[in-house]
Amino acid sequence: MRKKNYFAGPSVLPMEVLQEMRDQLVDYEGNGISMLETSHRGGMFEKMYDDCLSTFRELIHIPEDYDVYFLGGGATLQFAMIPFNFLLPGTKAAYCKTGTWANKACNDAQKIGDVAVIFDDKENNYTHLPDVDKLVIPENCSYLYLCANETIGGIEYKKFPKRDKTPIIADMSSDFMSRPVDVSNFDMIYGGVQKNLGPAGATFIIMKKSMLDRRNKNLVAYLDYALHAKEKGLYNTPPVAAIWGVKLMFDWIKKMGGVEAMDKRAELKSSMIYNIIDSSDFWRSPVDPAVRSRMNIVFRLPSEELEAKFVEESKKEGMLGLKGHRSVGGLRASLYNACPVEDVEALAAFMKEFERKNG
Amino acid sequence: MRKKNYFAGPSVLPMEVLQEMRDQLVDYEGNGISMLETSHRGGMFEKMYDDCLSTFRELIHIPEDYDVYFLGGGATLQFAMIPFNFLLPGTKAAYCKTGTWANKACNDAQKIGDVAVIFDDKENNYTHLPDVDKLVIPENCSYLYLCANETIGGIEYKKFPKRDKTPIIADMSSDFMSRPVDVSNFDMIYGGVQKNLGPAGATFIIMKKSMLDRRNKNLVAYLDYALHAKEKGLYNTPPVAAIWGVKLMFDWIKKMGGVEAMDKRAELKSSMIYNIIDSSDFWRSPVDPAVRSRMNIVFRLPSEELEAKFVEESKKEGMLGLKGHRSVGGLRASLYNACPVEDVEALAAFMKEFERKNG
Repeated sequence: MRKKNYFAGPSVLPMEVLQEMRDQLVDYEGNGISMLETSHRGGMFEKMYDDCLSTFRELIHIPEDYDVYFLGGGATLQFAMIPFNFLLPGTKAAYCKTGTWANKACNDAQKIGDVAVIFDDKENNYTHLPDVDKLVIPENCSYLYLCANETIGGIEYKKFPKRDKTPIIADMSSDFMSRPVDVSNFDMIYGGVQKNLGPAGATFIIMKKSMLDRRNKNLVAYLDYALHAKEKGLYNTPPVAAIWGVKLMFDWIKKMGGVEAMDKRAELKSSMIYNIIDSSDFWRSPVDPAVRSRMNIVFRLPSEELEAKFVEESKKEGMLGLKGHRSVGGLRASLYNACPVEDVEALAAFMKEFERKNG
Repeated sequence: MRKKNYFAGPSVLPMEVLQEMRDQLVDYEGNGISMLETSHRGGMFEKMYDDCLSTFRELIHIPEDYDVYFLGGGATLQFAMIPFNFLLPGTKAAYCKTGTWANKACNDAQKIGDVAVIFDDKENNYTHLPDVDKLVIPENCSYLYLCANETIGGIEYKKFPKRDKTPIIADMSSDFMSRPVDVSNFDMIYGGVQKNLGPAGATFIIMKKSMLDRRNKNLVAYLDYALHAKEKGLYNTPPVAAIWGVKLMFDWIKKMGGVEAMDKRAELKSSMIYNIIDSSDFWRSPVDPAVRSRMNIVFRLPSEELEAKFVEESKKEGMLGLKGHRSVGGLRASLYNACPVEDVEALAAFMKEFERKNG
């Protein structure tokens, strides 16, 4: 029987996507060859890739003056590539430290150049986000960096800083395409695909072309965005299997009604769980209610013993991935795009029953 | 009908591997979840990954004091990571420029530190390899770098330099596991998996643990081999789909008789084609006969018109990927591990018939 999958990433894929991959795996669309063994310089891959990028642009309304492509190495490699390219000598980069992912990006930037930490919620153990209208960006700032959704902390920006003269770069690994985003407000949006957009192994890059003019020159090949932009991500061999999965996921999102439909689903699904959390003192949300993530719902029970029992009993019900990240403890349900509404209903029912028995 | 696949990479996979991926894709071994949607911190992935690494060690006899794992970003990212980690201030790195891939690695190293080019076959358009017994390694050298097989030039080291005090680092992307290799002669062997070992998206790293003690410190996270070694490649989310394919490919190589059997197959398959090339003046091999690659057989016909005709007619016979790389022209047949003997027999028959009609 199919498990209910609440993993924080890699994470659940739609059954239709898995079945399509299965059906086309040995012989892709009657071409007599698998997508996994064709040349990335060959027509079969190129057509699939062009379709993928074209649906990508359509779904999230990427303007013409933005490049879009995929790289390898995960978001973690981007933590380094961003300052290597854009943290110019004699300038600062402004970082908002909001949890594990933003902080890792900030650590890498500090190894490369001058960083201004303009928000750091360490004292609250990263449970709040900045008031974006009050952020003070330093003079001569190369870019402002933020992480849209922190999977471990379970917090998500509900509003983004408005771009003026300072470029904004955002890691949207864990909530991209779960809600509409005005791409033109950002100079770069990127993310690992393995949460909302497909199987692990690819990182999407959306970048305003003009950013390439203000990058550091003479970088080594793989770290240079200009090389990748020029070749649409095919400067070297791309992660074909992951990109194929993303292409099918984009088709699925489109068929489901696009990003607007994903937005409604995310609201519906996360409300089901937050409503339970808010319904009694048995449950507790450790984060600022104003910035609760719709993707990663972090919650606590009255004791660690009860939390362990919750995880154990949920597994018996075929529910995977409900244990919180080891660095913060507690419980976490990740409800990405592909997580079926029925699986969230099942989780809600399980939670109510668990409270009835143990509350 | 299944095509005959001579692509230079990504390249042919065994039908058994494709079928196994297909059969397990939706529900991996009855776990109720796909390998593509499970957490890389979860037991199902970890068991597969441990099996993969363990078969890897067994197949190519990796000593205990070597780490082995996978990264993303392809061999191209390694061109940069190697000098970032190992080209120490006040030392040189020695590079053998033997074609497209070694030269790209050398270019990146020159952006990072001091490089001694100890062999460069530019005047012969990269058709020869150095006599490894005559290489002169500079004093105070951090490492000697070479590319074992050049896919575009079609040349392959038949013998490697013997390690003394200078560590040897080798890119074996395109001929790894096609022949036995004494891993202990190298301090690092790495490569993209998409030629001999699986679908595109992962890069294997084999590294003597002691190399980590002599690396540059304070590197950004993803570029630091020590972080990856410590987490066996799971510092961040790995390219799961590609690794799963590699695991199945390792199982297949083992079932076929291991690297020793691959070696015999490579000799058999490449001889079939080289014998034809040597049989008449209709065919011409542009490379030093002593270092002809068994993986990528580069050959020419009396005219470019005939070469175009060869490609066109081969396609009609269901044969893909026989056009030479655009940078050198001509023809190329890539005969990696998974390429069936029957497909090489079919190519040989096609070549003979083509010569009969056009010779």
